[in-house]
Amino acid sequence: MRGLWLENERVRYRDDVPDPQPAPGEAIVRVRLAGVCNTDLEMVKGYYPFTGVPGHEFVGEVERADGAPEWVGRRVAGEINATCGACAACAAGRRSHCEQRTVLGLIGRNGTFAERLALPVANLHAVPDAVPDEAAVFTEPLAAALRIGEQTRLTRHDRMVVVGDGKLGHLVALAWAPEVGSLAVATRSGRARPVLQAQGIRCLAASALPDASADLVVECTGDPGGLDTARRLVRPAGTIVMKSTYRGETAIDFVRVVVDEVTLIGSRCGPFAPALERLAGGIEVAGMVEARFDLADGADALAHAARPGALKVLLRP
Amino acid sequence: MRGLWLENERVRYRDDVPDPQPAPGEAIVRVRLAGVCNTDLEMVKGYYPFTGVPGHEFVGEVERADGAPEWVGRRVAGEINATCGACAACAAGRRSHCEQRTVLGLIGRNGTFAERLALPVANLHAVPDAVPDEAAVFTEPLAAALRIGEQTRLTRHDRMVVVGDGKLGHLVALAWAPEVGSLAVATRSGRARPVLQAQGIRCLAASALPDASADLVVECTGDPGGLDTARRLVRPAGTIVMKSTYRGETAIDFVRVVVDEVTLIGSRCGPFAPALERLAGGIEVAGMVEARFDLADGADALAHAARPGALKVLLRP
Repeated sequence: MRGLWLENERVRYRDDVPDPQPAPGEAIVRVRLAGVCNTDLEMVKGYYPFTGVPGHEFVGEVERADGAPEWVGRRVAGEINATCGACAACAAGRRSHCEQRTVLGLIGRNGTFAERLALPVANLHAVPDAVPDEAAVFTEPLAAALRIGEQTRLTRHDRMVVVGDGKLGHLVALAWAPEVGSLAVATRSGRARPVLQAQGIRCLAASALPDASADLVVECTGDPGGLDTARRLVRPAGTIVMKSTYRGETAIDFVRVVVDEVTLIGSRCGPFAPALERLAGGIEVAGMVEARFDLADGADALAHAARPGALKVLLRP
Repeated sequence: MRGLWLENERVRYRDDVPDPQPAPGEAIVRVRLAGVCNTDLEMVKGYYPFTGVPGHEFVGEVERADGAPEWVGRRVAGEINATCGACAACAAGRRSHCEQRTVLGLIGRNGTFAERLALPVANLHAVPDAVPDEAAVFTEPLAAALRIGEQTRLTRHDRMVVVGDGKLGHLVALAWAPEVGSLAVATRSGRARPVLQAQGIRCLAASALPDASADLVVECTGDPGGLDTARRLVRPAGTIVMKSTYRGETAIDFVRVVVDEVTLIGSRCGPFAPALERLAGGIEVAGMVEARFDLADGADALAHAARPGALKVLLRP
């Protein structure tokens, strides 16, 4: 089949990517649209070793579903962690931390930048008819944004600051602005600011935000400097949620973390069902689509997505 | 009065330390015993600027109590943060983070290494008769150990590892061993190991503990390397409580923190009432007393406390 292939930190289009071979209980999904995430870009830079089809954001249509024919023909999004169900993490309900997991386009499983992919039927979520493909393709990153609500106890009184106005920062802001007391995005100069402001979200430079003024800071910059900013903005006994993945070590003054009793929480994959509910409810993600590329132009798509300030780039198989 | 005086990173004994001048609502407490904490030692090394009487651990007897004569003559421990009651942090119930706070022997208020100290009456806790002075002097650090229970949701199934067998690690182990599923202390070669083992607490080298084997790791080493060890030992979606304060920045690989969704929690002062209950209940802290010094020999006391592996050093005014 046609697809992108990552090998030795280089991505190229191929028309002979191996078809997915579903394991028992798995479905074959024809990809309708795939989204490019910063993690894909980091992986291409050698973030960690992966050879195969990258990509983990998609909306697709089920072609086959082992033992579950009722799924065939349905439009779906899919959770990206394929889990064993038997290890200590699975038994404890922490399935996204399964010790034996494969992860779509990331660990041991070909991803979404191809015509078809395989995922366990248990990972599939039907996309409501009201949600167009260009919204449904945001299900996975929106779920990641909603993960914050599972890890913290946000209230309607909380002051939230999102550091970073890239794709994930944008979704975090859209997802949480209606739920908290106040929300501001510390933006750079990218094209995100007008897109966010058009939705009534307050945007300003990080330097314009007062010290210790946020109950919760979400670090989405993908840049070690983001943590310094987050540390400055969070109030004592406040929380920093770390959403960025970037290479290398980051230095932090733990004396202040201890004295101010700051909590730092690493945050990854989130719940699909509420993400799809939010999309069906009309959360406005379409403005984030920056460009669409055919799969054959995938290398150009990734280059475009890597531009500073770029929002969502989509791939059409 | 007699006391130790810290100035320009040097501590000396003086017989002309100014008597405490109580503000309205404050008590004068005659110190019966004071304990040396690693924070005192860090402060002497220039950890942050403080000039005055250091020390924040004590048991004493109330000599005067503005507006509260019923306290006079009582044996007390005292919370170290003197708060304004009016700022946003106080109003939100986060009094130990009061924006205007003074802190006994640490910020803007003379401490416990002297004959007398002043604290708000509201900070005092009566010491039960069953608790001898050499146990009561541990109230403040034991409260700090119990703080972990306010910040996490520990259960009787949790596997806890304490990294560091110094004074605070020791108290954390004593406090939590009866409350969790299992507890191990990653010890060095100090004298703590036999003291802990005598109380049935499992001690072993950090290298003997398997990766990702702890639900909760408490970092008590006072050393940047302790965080690396904690990171290695905590399971995905587990928690690291940071109890150490040490100077400078610490590098950490936040990719692993994010991907494994680890929570890091800075932890400082804790609740006095349960600490006194535990002491009255017989929690065995006496074995931690390593040496007793007269106040006039305070410089020697601090030097002794700074020895690697030293446990608790007490000062008698």
